[in-house]
Amino acid sequence: MADDKALTTRKGDFSAWYNEVVQRAELADYSPVRGSMVIRPWGYAIWERMQRALDDMFKATGHQNAYFPLLIPKSFIEREKEHVKGFAPEVAVVTHAGGKELEEPLVIRPTSETIIYAMFAKWVQSYRDLPLLINQWANVVRWEMRTRLFLRTAEFLWQEGHTAHKDEAEAEEETIRMLGVYREFMEQWMCMPVITGRKSDSERFAGAVRTYSCEALMQDNKALQAGTSHMLGQNFAKQFDLKFQTEAGGEDYAYNTSWGVSTRLVGALVMTHGDDNGIVLPPWLAPTQVVIVPIYRSDEERALVLAKADAVAARLKQDQVRVHIDSRDTMKPGAKYYEWERKGVPMRVEIGPRDVANSKLAVVMRTEVPGIQRKEIMDEGAALNGIRQRLEDYQNALRQAALDRRESNSHRGITDYAKLRELVESESGFIFAGWCGSAECEAKVKEDTKATIRNLPQEEFRSKENPAKCVVCGQDAKHEAIWARAY
Amino acid sequence: MADDKALTTRKGDFSAWYNEVVQRAELADYSPVRGSMVIRPWGYAIWERMQRALDDMFKATGHQNAYFPLLIPKSFIEREKEHVKGFAPEVAVVTHAGGKELEEPLVIRPTSETIIYAMFAKWVQSYRDLPLLINQWANVVRWEMRTRLFLRTAEFLWQEGHTAHKDEAEAEEETIRMLGVYREFMEQWMCMPVITGRKSDSERFAGAVRTYSCEALMQDNKALQAGTSHMLGQNFAKQFDLKFQTEAGGEDYAYNTSWGVSTRLVGALVMTHGDDNGIVLPPWLAPTQVVIVPIYRSDEERALVLAKADAVAARLKQDQVRVHIDSRDTMKPGAKYYEWERKGVPMRVEIGPRDVANSKLAVVMRTEVPGIQRKEIMDEGAALNGIRQRLEDYQNALRQAALDRRESNSHRGITDYAKLRELVESESGFIFAGWCGSAECEAKVKEDTKATIRNLPQEEFRSKENPAKCVVCGQDAKHEAIWARAY
Repeated sequence: MADDKALTTRKGDFSAWYNEVVQRAELADYSPVRGSMVIRPWGYAIWERMQRALDDMFKATGHQNAYFPLLIPKSFIEREKEHVKGFAPEVAVVTHAGGKELEEPLVIRPTSETIIYAMFAKWVQSYRDLPLLINQWANVVRWEMRTRLFLRTAEFLWQEGHTAHKDEAEAEEETIRMLGVYREFMEQWMCMPVITGRKSDSERFAGAVRTYSCEALMQDNKALQAGTSHMLGQNFAKQFDLKFQTEAGGEDYAYNTSWGVSTRLVGALVMTHGDDNGIVLPPWLAPTQVVIVPIYRSDEERALVLAKADAVAARLKQDQVRVHIDSRDTMKPGAKYYEWERKGVPMRVEIGPRDVANSKLAVVMRTEVPGIQRKEIMDEGAALNGIRQRLEDYQNALRQAALDRRESNSHRGITDYAKLRELVESESGFIFAGWCGSAECEAKVKEDTKATIRNLPQEEFRSKENPAKCVVCGQDAKHEAIWARAY
Repeated sequence: MADDKALTTRKGDFSAWYNEVVQRAELADYSPVRGSMVIRPWGYAIWERMQRALDDMFKATGHQNAYFPLLIPKSFIEREKEHVKGFAPEVAVVTHAGGKELEEPLVIRPTSETIIYAMFAKWVQSYRDLPLLINQWANVVRWEMRTRLFLRTAEFLWQEGHTAHKDEAEAEEETIRMLGVYREFMEQWMCMPVITGRKSDSERFAGAVRTYSCEALMQDNKALQAGTSHMLGQNFAKQFDLKFQTEAGGEDYAYNTSWGVSTRLVGALVMTHGDDNGIVLPPWLAPTQVVIVPIYRSDEERALVLAKADAVAARLKQDQVRVHIDSRDTMKPGAKYYEWERKGVPMRVEIGPRDVANSKLAVVMRTEVPGIQRKEIMDEGAALNGIRQRLEDYQNALRQAALDRRESNSHRGITDYAKLRELVESESGFIFAGWCGSAECEAKVKEDTKATIRNLPQEEFRSKENPAKCVVCGQDAKHEAIWARAY
């Protein structure tokens, strides 16, 4: 793809825009292996920053990392009945290894409940060993038929938390706590507002008692499930004999939770903030926060300008700003601007010979966002003192803009089924409406409109007035639900 | 395994000691999957610290992380002839996925040269795109027949660096640079001295032009290959059409390098420093550097002592010391000492009511090491001010002790074949002797003694006088070689 060709616009074809922008920002590339992608350095550096932030949050809530085998005996996956129904159709199976056919085939983990709880059973004897709070950073494989870079790939990177508790109340508390950790990460770091809530039974994780999700609204008004947290009850503990001696001296099966987010979040970031010039990165997650572009015509000017660039970079590094000087000789400044815009770097500082003479810096933010001046020529001292704060302001402004967009594409109090259909069909975003709780009504909406119940929102996201009736059948509503078409 | 049972001693059975200590220090555990292990939180935390240090060093030398697919088309592995010979016998093969038989089987990566250089071929057009300096943190699978925790497992975690260069000289320079990075990491961080050098042709990586290694000597006087760096020439570039336009306007194949270290390093750490009480961790890699054990009899004493422990911990954290207070009520101090010794924590601080009253702290190092006082009752102020330095001194002392052990188990100037056999058979460590360079002499030693040429050491490790004759055949020596039995 030629570098100087304009991107497809979001309005023109959101899906084509997404595929192009992911490749042209060098986040990822297609690989010769069906459904698998290559995460390129720029995309991986974003993922590394996500990992670091999440990992710190997991550790702050008492979790420890460990690592479990990639290959799981087929019989393990088959033990929990719901689990096998959900995952068996999409596993990749190793039948031969070391030049021989295996006695029992091994599946590549699509998720690790089975192998992890089998190990927990070895380690947990007594209530004193609980809670056991483990996280794993790993790759998993799910043989999906239709794949998209980051959003749905045969192999993806993720973290999966797995915990064991003495009773259901503690497990439920953990499930909700980690849902909250995800929400905080997505809102604070990614500047991506999410609605947290419980999934309907039909969308529950295979093997869970209850599944909760974070749902975000992309710029095409489709929902994206950005993270899930599951209360597994004793379903797996019973299959893997994960028992413990209770404080009272009896014996009980442990209660498990599991929770995960994946490289899908990189795709979510792109579709939340990107524009027709490329991706837009929140400063907290940007591998480079400030790129300095020197402008010069002669060798003399070059030396002058680069010396200033070095001084500016050194000063910013002191403030823990991640800064890069683009000193490539083979490219003009305009081409550099274009490249770093495409890659979403939050701030560009331009330095030319006149700026050096006048002690000025030209500071340009990646994108127009309410409350932040996009371009400004500043006194060098004021600029240097203010850059860190400006990045913080920009982070906050991106968050607010995304929240405003989500809110202006949310529709509450929908009581009329025809109206719901109309909203879904015109791709209008999140639709809040009453639901009687029946699988039939849920299925009817899906069949009629392709919209699904994203979740049953937690209290703070619910409308002021509880819906009285199910928007589909008119019976009494049991829940307020959010409907939308989804990735 | 009962927690209070003494470990097998190193002298009694080094191999049994190793297996026990790895499990009882909770570094790793056997899994239900043949040849695969579970890395437990304590072991994984050590690996995380290794990763962080290495990753910083890779980035400081200009490398970027990326991620490539786990599954590689079988035909890719088969393209480079030496490569397939080396790896085909031990690959795990996916034949079915998504409920169907695959048209082309996929192998789980045993190493990623093939898939990575196939991608490089897409990204590299011109000399301006070179050098391309990439690293990947990943899991790989090699179906080994005899496995040991950390040292040889069917699945292991590692990093693999892959680079592309415009000519052989630059590739060779990179190969040697990364060998040096490994050496620095192993010596400085792990306190494990290594001898760097070139592998003989028979021990070369499958597909490489030249392989270099870091060789360490374990406490049982067996050698352990701790890291390798390969100059691949154009072998893979030619198979994967990794071409570029040269500065002169011509076309050439790129020159590649690859280099890797793995979770095997955790095993190396255990066998370098461990003793009959457990593992011994260098402070730079210890997840916890200081454990505070409060000593009390009554609730009143408990409150007093824990308040002091909190204050001490807060002060140490200010100094970036990783400190943990073991406040478990269900265990006596002696049992805690025993547990943290087994887990290798460098320093223990004991605080009892009398210590609080007298403003004293009892400071105890994990192990006796020349130059460091093992146990000392110190004034609190002096202790707090000195703990960071004491940890540094202990790191240096462990490094020196390991070097002294390596040196006292190295035998130079061996010219007599009978003497070499005698040294090998009495497990005497590294044996330096002349080698004519012939595969026959190399094979004869292996057959007679099971010792192999570990490497042909780099200049600074060579003996002052070049050996004149091959220790095996008496012909003129081409190299000085190091022989040893190895893991």
